[in-house]
Parts: sequence; C-alpha cells; structure tokens
Amino acid sequence: MHSFTLDPRLEADTYDIGVLQLCRVLLMDDMRYPWVILVPQRAGSTEIIDLPKHDQHSLMAEISCASTALKILFSPDKLNVAALGNQVNQLHVHVLARFVSDTAWPNPVWGLDSRTPYPAHMAGSLIDKLAKALRPFGLKDN
Amino acid sequence: MHSFTLDPRLEADTYDIGVLQLCRVLLMDDMRYPWVILVPQRAGSTEIIDLPKHDQHSLMAEISCASTALKILFSPDKLNVAALGNQVNQLHVHVLARFVSDTAWPNPVWGLDSRTPYPAHMAGSLIDKLAKALRPFGLKDN
Repeated sequence: MHSFTLDPRLEADTYDIGVLQLCRVLLMDDMRYPWVILVPQRAGSTEIIDLPKHDQHSLMAEISCASTALKILFSPDKLNVAALGNQVNQLHVHVLARFVSDTAWPNPVWGLDSRTPYPAHMAGSLIDKLAKALRPFGLKDN
Repeated sequence: MHSFTLDPRLEADTYDIGVLQLCRVLLMDDMRYPWVILVPQRAGSTEIIDLPKHDQHSLMAEISCASTALKILFSPDKLNVAALGNQVNQLHVHVLARFVSDTAWPNPVWGLDSRTPYPAHMAGSLIDKLAKALRPFGLKDN
C-alpha cells in the first residue's frame, strides 16, 4: 500500500490551506478566481468511483464545506464544482467562485492558459480567511 | 412549493434516459462524447449546496452510478464530472466519458460551440444501452 503524496503539479500551482477529514485543501494560485482544490488523500485514486462509498460521501460533504466557505466569503454569482483530471491524473475536485464579471464567464475556467499568481501579501490574507471559514468544518493544519 | 420541471434548454439539447431516486437522467445530444446529465428533481435548486444533506448524498451516489455505467460501456481514458451552471441555472451535473482521441482533449468540453447531434438510430441504441446499464441502479422510465 502506497502512502498519499500530492501531485507535483498541484503542489506547484497552489498554496496549502489545510486538511479536512478526507481531503487536502489547496488554494489555486490564480487571482482571476477564488479557487479551492480538494484532493482526497487516497493514493492511486484518479476517479471519484475509485473511492469507497464512505469516502465518496466525505468528498461530497467537503465539497459542500468548500462551497459554503466560498459563498460566505465572496458572494459569487455561481459556484463551479468539477472533477476533470485530464491533465493531472491524481483525483482532485475544483470548487470555484464565479462571477458574471470574471474574465472567463460564462465559459469554464480550464484550458485558458493564463494563470495570474497572487502577490504574496494577497495570498497570505486569503489563505487565512479561507482557513478561518473552514475551521468550523474541521479544517486542521496540514 | 413549486413542482419540478426540466429547464427548456436542457430539454431541447438532450434525450430522456429515465429517472433515478433523485435525478432525471439525460443523454446530451452530442455524438462527440458519451455525455450524461443528471438533474436533481428539486425545484429552484441551482447549487449543490441548495440541496439538503440527504439529497447531496443521493446525488453523489447517482454520479457514481452514471460514472460506472459510462465506464462499463465505453472504457474511457477519463471521466469528467462537473456542476457548472453558468449558462443554464437549473442545478445539473455533467458526467462525461473522455478519450485522449476526442476532439476537445485535454481541454474541457464546455464553451466549444459545435454540438454534433446523433443520427436518430444511433441515439436510440445508445439510450437503450445506458438505460440497461442503469437499471441495476434503480433507473425507471420517466
């Protein structure tokens, strides 16, 4: 049995927010959209259906937590939730706050290759806010 | 309390496959990808977090059923699962079989405006296959 390690590309493109019961919680380093990524800490999983049923339920619960945190913090026009993995094989779920005024609207955000990293001071305060919003849902430091 | 009716755009772009415990099950009329859409029969829902917890669990279970059916029937390289709703407000979840050789790979399929409808005989046999694969999961006629 292999132990879980975060995919290097996910690690390179994100900041660490913490860990819920099942998932690592990451902030995508892209200031165009408030964008959380949930990564179930189960080595070798690429599809939702690779997870046992109880992990699938935990995943849905944690999607709900991340969605609620983004909704409270950003009042988005729409949430986008997606498990794609066409580029990064390790199972991960995108949870995004979308706005009618964002650069990609109404299209999806993936496949547009112009990630805009946060200035360091902005990333820090956003990570703090998200961590604070997720702590009532059981978020712990990684 | 309003009763559930399917969004007219979803209705126009899809074929009916049947109904699971929570969701209407639709086949996207686009022969570029085997593409199922799940629509929770809950009037007024636009986000996953609009659903009560037990419906969220049913939704995950039905995503899992649709994914398994697509996997068995098409042996895709990757499944894509997404709740976007930037264009159609009614809560719906896309479950797609993706292939390294499909026209959009590795990009997502949304936002490319070139839906390719099935010839009628192909749609019919595909709907039959999907319905047969979903019947063990409780699919009924709508």
